[in-house]
This record gives sequence, C-alpha cells and structure tokens, in this order.
Amino acid sequence: MNLDAAMQAAIEQAEQVKGRTYPNPPVGAVILDRDGQIAGVGATSPAGGPHAEVLALRRAGTRAAGGTAVVTLEPCNHTGRTPPCVDALLAAGVAAVVFAVSDPNPLAAGGAARLAEAGVEVQAGVLAGAVAGGPLREWLHKLRTGTPHVTWKFATSVDGRSAAADGTSQWITSEAARADVHRRRAAAEAIIVGTGTVFVDDPVLTARLPDGALAEKQPLRVVVGEREISPDARVLNDDSRTMVIRTRDPHEVLRALSDRTDVLVEGGPTLAGAFLRAGVIDRILAYVAPILLGGPITAVDDVGVLSIAQAQRWQFDGVQAVGPDVLLSLVPA
Amino acid sequence: MNLDAAMQAAIEQAEQVKGRTYPNPPVGAVILDRDGQIAGVGATSPAGGPHAEVLALRRAGTRAAGGTAVVTLEPCNHTGRTPPCVDALLAAGVAAVVFAVSDPNPLAAGGAARLAEAGVEVQAGVLAGAVAGGPLREWLHKLRTGTPHVTWKFATSVDGRSAAADGTSQWITSEAARADVHRRRAAAEAIIVGTGTVFVDDPVLTARLPDGALAEKQPLRVVVGEREISPDARVLNDDSRTMVIRTRDPHEVLRALSDRTDVLVEGGPTLAGAFLRAGVIDRILAYVAPILLGGPITAVDDVGVLSIAQAQRWQFDGVQAVGPDVLLSLVPA
Ligand SMILES: NC(=O)c1ccc[n+]([C@@H]2O[C@H](COP(=O)([O-])OP(=O)(O)OC[C@H]3O[C@@H](n4cnc5c(N)ncnc54)[C@H](OP(=O)(O)O)[C@@H]3O)[C@@H](O)[C@H]2O)c1
Ligand SMILES: NC(=O)c1ccc[n+]([C@@H]2O[C@H](COP(=O)([O-])OP(=O)(O)OC[C@H]3O[C@@H](n4cnc5c(N)ncnc54)[C@H](OP(=O)(O)O)[C@@H]3O)[C@@H](O)[C@H]2O)c1
Repeated sequence: MNLDAAMQAAIEQAEQVKGRTYPNPPVGAVILDRDGQIAGVGATSPAGGPHAEVLALRRAGTRAAGGTAVVTLEPCNHTGRTPPCVDALLAAGVAAVVFAVSDPNPLAAGGAARLAEAGVEVQAGVLAGAVAGGPLREWLHKLRTGTPHVTWKFATSVDGRSAAADGTSQWITSEAARADVHRRRAAAEAIIVGTGTVFVDDPVLTARLPDGALAEKQPLRVVVGEREISPDARVLNDDSRTMVIRTRDPHEVLRALSDRTDVLVEGGPTLAGAFLRAGVIDRILAYVAPILLGGPITAVDDVGVLSIAQAQRWQFDGVQAVGPDVLLSLVPA
Repeated sequence: MNLDAAMQAAIEQAEQVKGRTYPNPPVGAVILDRDGQIAGVGATSPAGGPHAEVLALRRAGTRAAGGTAVVTLEPCNHTGRTPPCVDALLAAGVAAVVFAVSDPNPLAAGGAARLAEAGVEVQAGVLAGAVAGGPLREWLHKLRTGTPHVTWKFATSVDGRSAAADGTSQWITSEAARADVHRRRAAAEAIIVGTGTVFVDDPVLTARLPDGALAEKQPLRVVVGEREISPDARVLNDDSRTMVIRTRDPHEVLRALSDRTDVLVEGGPTLAGAFLRAGVIDRILAYVAPILLGGPITAVDDVGVLSIAQAQRWQFDGVQAVGPDVLLSLVPA
C-alpha cells in the first residue's frame, strides 16, 4: 500500500471518532508492516484513553517492528494522561513515521525531532491539506483562535429557497442528505437555531440514526433570541441537553460555547444572517436539492451586503453528490 | 484506443460544431485503422456540406479499409443534399461501425441495417447517454417535440441571489464562467431576455471570445415584454439581429422561434419565472459563485409553487467546476 492510500485510511479512522475526542484531536493511525501491508489501525479514544498510534501499534503487535507508522498528526512527545506516543513508536521498533500535519500545540510538539534523533526515518506533510481541512479542521481552528469552529449548514432549493411560500420546508432535501446532516450533528458539540425556527418548525434537533433511533452522542442544543420559547417546545425534551441564550449577539453566543470546538448553526435565515454579518462563520455547508420553489423565503436574509463589490467572498473546498442532492462546502476566501 | 475513448473523441468533434449544423444534427466521427489508431476525425459541416463520417473517411484515406468507424449518430441511409453516409462507409471498406444513438428520423434511418446486410459489424449504444444528453440533446428534443429546446441559464450567489440589494450584478461569476456562457451563446440560436433586464442592465447579448471580439456565429437576440425598449438599447446594435416580441406569453415566444433548435433564456427573474410556470424549460444551467449577497433580488421570483409538496422537481445531470465557480446542470425529473 502506498503512503497516500495509507494516509487516506488513517483519515477515515480519524473521521470515525470526530467529535468524541475533544479537547484531544481526532487522530487516525495506520501501521504498515515491512511488506507495506496494513498491520493495525487506530483512532484517538475519548480523553484519557490511548492515542491513535498506541491502539494501532497494539493491533499490529510484532508486525510493527521494521514497519511504517502513518499518522494524521505528528506523534506527541508529551506525558499527559497517557505517556508520549513517541515512546510507544520507538519501543515497537518502527523504521519510519509518516504524518500529515505538524503538531501546533507547543506542549505536545517535538515528536518528529525525537524520532529522527532516534534514527527513525520521518516524513511530514503527506496529504496535509486533506487532514488540515478534514478531520483536524475544527481542532486546529480552536487551537489557533481560541474560539469554536462554526459551520453554517442549510438546505436549499436550486433557486436559493429554504422553504416554500407557505413556510413548509419538510423536506427540501433527500433522505440521504438528511442522514448526512444527522451524521454531522453527531460529530458536532452544539447545534444553534434562532427562536424563530423553534416557533415555526418545533424541531427536536437531535442526531438520529437512519432507523430513527438517537445517536450515541448528542450535541448540545442551543436556542438564541430574546423571546421566550414554550416549555413544551420539542427542543427542550430529554433527548439531549439544551441551552437557551436570550441574546441577539452572535459573539455572546460563542462566548457561552467557548469550551466547545465544533458547533453547527442550523438557522433560520435571520440567525444565519446575524452570524454571517458578525463574520463568525468558518465554513458553509449548502445541501442543494434539485427543486425550484420560488417565493419569499430564502436561506439567509441580510448578510450586510449592499452592492456587488461588497459581496462576502468564499471559496468552494468541496462539491459532492449526496443521493439526488449536491453538497457545496465553502471556506473563507 | 478503446471504443469508449474513440466515442469520447467523436463527442468532442460534435461539440465543436454544435449550433452551426441545424437543421442537420451536430455529429462527430472518428475512424480507427486496423490497429485501433485514429486515422481521421470529422464533424458535420454546415447544411449542404459533407457529413461527419465523410469528412473523417476523407482524412483517413486508405487507412479506413478494414478499420472501425465510430460515430455519435447512426450513419444516414438517405440522399438529401449529400449522398448517404452508408455508401461512403461501404466504399471505404470499413470492417465495423460503432454508433451511440440510433437515428430517430424515419427519412434518414435504416443505416445500421444496410451496413449489417453488407457484412459490416455494427454496434449501437456506445456512450448513448452521453451523446443523447450532450451534443445531440437539442436536436433530438426538436425532432421529438417539434419545439425548440429551451435552456434557462442564470448566475447566482450560493444564497440564490442574482444581484446585490442595490441591483448591481456585474460580475457575480468569474471570468471563466462568463467565458463558458459566451461559448454556449455562440452554440445557441437565440437568447431571450425580458424588457426588465434591458432597462436595468442594457446588455449587448452577443457571444464574445475571451479577447472581447465577437464570435463568428451570433445568436438571435430576443426581447420579451409589452413595454417599448429604447431605440438606443445596446441589444439593438448591429452586432447581431434582434427580435422584439411584445407579449408576456412564453408559448407565443416559442412559436415565434419555432424554426430554432437551441434557445437560451437568460432572465431576469420575472421572465424566468414565467417560462418555468409555463413548463417550457428543458434544462437549467446554474452558475453558482462562492459568494453571499443576501437581499431581495433572487434569480427567479415565482415558479407557481405555494407549498413544498408542489415543488418543481428536477434532477442534476451534471456538476462541474468552472474556474472558482460551480456549474449545476439540471433536467426535468
Ligand atoms: N432550510 C433550512 O436549512 C432551514 C433551517 C432552519 C430554519 N429554516 C426555516 O426558517 C424559518 C424561520 O426563520 P427565522 O428567520 O424566523 O428563524 P431563526 O433565524 O431561527 O430565528 C429568528 C430569531 O432569531 C433571534 N435572533 C438571534 N440573533 C438575532 C439577531 N442578531 N438579529 C435578529 N434576530 C436574532 C430573533 O429572536 P427573538 O425575536 O426571540 O430575539 C429572531 O426572531 C422557518 O420557516 C424554518 O423552516 C430553514
Ligand atoms: N444573474 C442573472 O443570471 C441575471 C440574468 C438576467 C437579469 N438579471 C437581473 O434581473 C434584474 C431584472 O429583473 P426583471 O425581472 O425586471 O427582468 P426580466 O425578467 O428580464 O424582465 C421583466 C419583464 O419581462 C416582461 N415579461 C415577459 N413575460 C412576462 C410574464 N409572463 N409576466 C410578467 N412579465 C413578463 C415584463 O415586461 P413588460 O412590463 O414590458 O411586459 C417584465 O416587466 C436585473 O437586476 C438584472 O441584473 C440577472
């Protein structure tokens, strides 16, 4: 197996634990034996449990000796709740360590240097973009800025509507797109909506599995706005915890969530506009259904732009089919 | 070269003459010699000139004997302004003929049968979907329905706006997307706008090359609406011909264009809505720019949908990057 394919496998490992490892990063690791065959894989366990490399080494057993460790993040050189991964890699006798992203955390960094000093062949930067924009995106953002990574997710028709003229919006997108959203909700730590969405749609805002059952991990539900919502609102049920923040200031909302890494803004148009005008959105996910709706209800109202010269400029970082729909992913330009 | 790759090359030949062959179909042909190497390519010349197969055979010369002709449309068996292509293929001594789409035109059909009778190996249906949805889409539509194929093309922000709040819209999409539009304009036979777009944007509505020069072939410009437009409107300049149709009825517009095959509706939102409500749009091309605009100006106003259950249902038949933008192509579901 070549290194890119092994790193891709490590990325898949990391994606599977995304959202369950913070404050630790969601990391994936693959151990290749001397012949380049996969001997073991692993991903970060919840805080306190073993790191990805350690799990992958355990599974590889003696096949790790003389092999290659392929890891999404530079192995740590730091004794926290677990001993440094570098020690485990050296003890296992791997001949080479390949990683995507260098550890920006000064506490944990230095792993690559120590491995090289010990005579291990070290290669950095393999699929670095895919990892930094993928499984580590939110964690790197939090480390760099100190604030949670905020994704605005919306469902829209091709003509930019998030509901039909009479307000009905269930369902704009396909079952496949909704399943994808539930997967992302399960990986996120909070979902934010405005009081308007609670009044109109009365959503339960949980992460559900395709069979309708609750996902193992539920994000915090956050309702933003000055009006009081009904105590019978479904968002207040026992399926998860809920935070009601009686403000209209996006910065105040993010301060209340400052211990989180990955939060999802699910709208509606008023709240999305407020967050976009405040410049606190880090990624946009638009699920575009192949339908036309027309009418007055758009996915976002006012983003603070009067003239084309002031347009908010983003760039596509992914376009993919999700069932019959298309998912457009954007990051700031 | 395998047959799929050869057909792909034939499709590219056909795309190059699209719009310049009607009422003849834009066809592409590739002649492979005995060794499977390309010996000659050709595409339909303007009406009266030789067909694609004949041009490709001429270029292949003696290398055609024992080879394979790969053609996007079943070779014709019909003496029109030119003799039947089947005669030319038999005279050249090709051993096999492969085509994508059978000729639905009863006058020209029967080519495959005559070739098979003459001992030529015949294979139909290679990349049939790509041809029927690609270079032959408009021609097949016209033959089947008797009416022109109508494409609604629009430029939009990710949030479904076709202009900023103050009405400015130049430019929403990139230079690359605009170049793509000009290429499509040159292939189309007519471009339709409403009087509103003429009043607001005063567009010239020509097909231009990347250097700004006029393309060789210009579509007819069509302005629809009851109001009189200014005699100084740029759409009335000498760069191409212009038809002003003082109606609000899309069917009347299409009747006036009944001798055309491929027409483009370029908006604005009022006209696009009228055509969509009338059910006369056969394809949607949305050039989506990675920007947010917000505000009141959407790409289409009212498509006759009140509730989500009545949504106009389409399906994506293509999603591609065009420079920094994304082009979504949709056909009726
Ligand atoms: N397609 C989708 O992806 C999607 C997603 C969600 C909702 N929707 C649709 O959106 C519609 C609801 O729209 P909406 O705009 O009323 O919902 P919303 O944006 O969820 O809620 C609007 C409320 O948010 C509060 N708010 C928070 N910050 C604000 C600020 N800076 N400025 C103004 N208000 C602020 C205000 O509540 P207070 O008045 O209490 O202060 C405001 O009334 C429904 O039809 C729903 O179906 C669609
Ligand atoms: N982003 C894009 O792709 C794009 C493309 C084109 C235009 N635009 C923008 O669109 C804006 C102009 O919008 P618009 O809606 O006024 O333009 P429009 O749709 O081009 O023209 C509207 C006019 O079309 C006529 N019309 C024809 N059939 C009609 C029908 N069935 N019902 C009603 N009216 C009919 C009416 O003219 P009469 O009143 O004369 O009858 C109406 O006023 C400009 O800001 C322009 O920049 C954007």
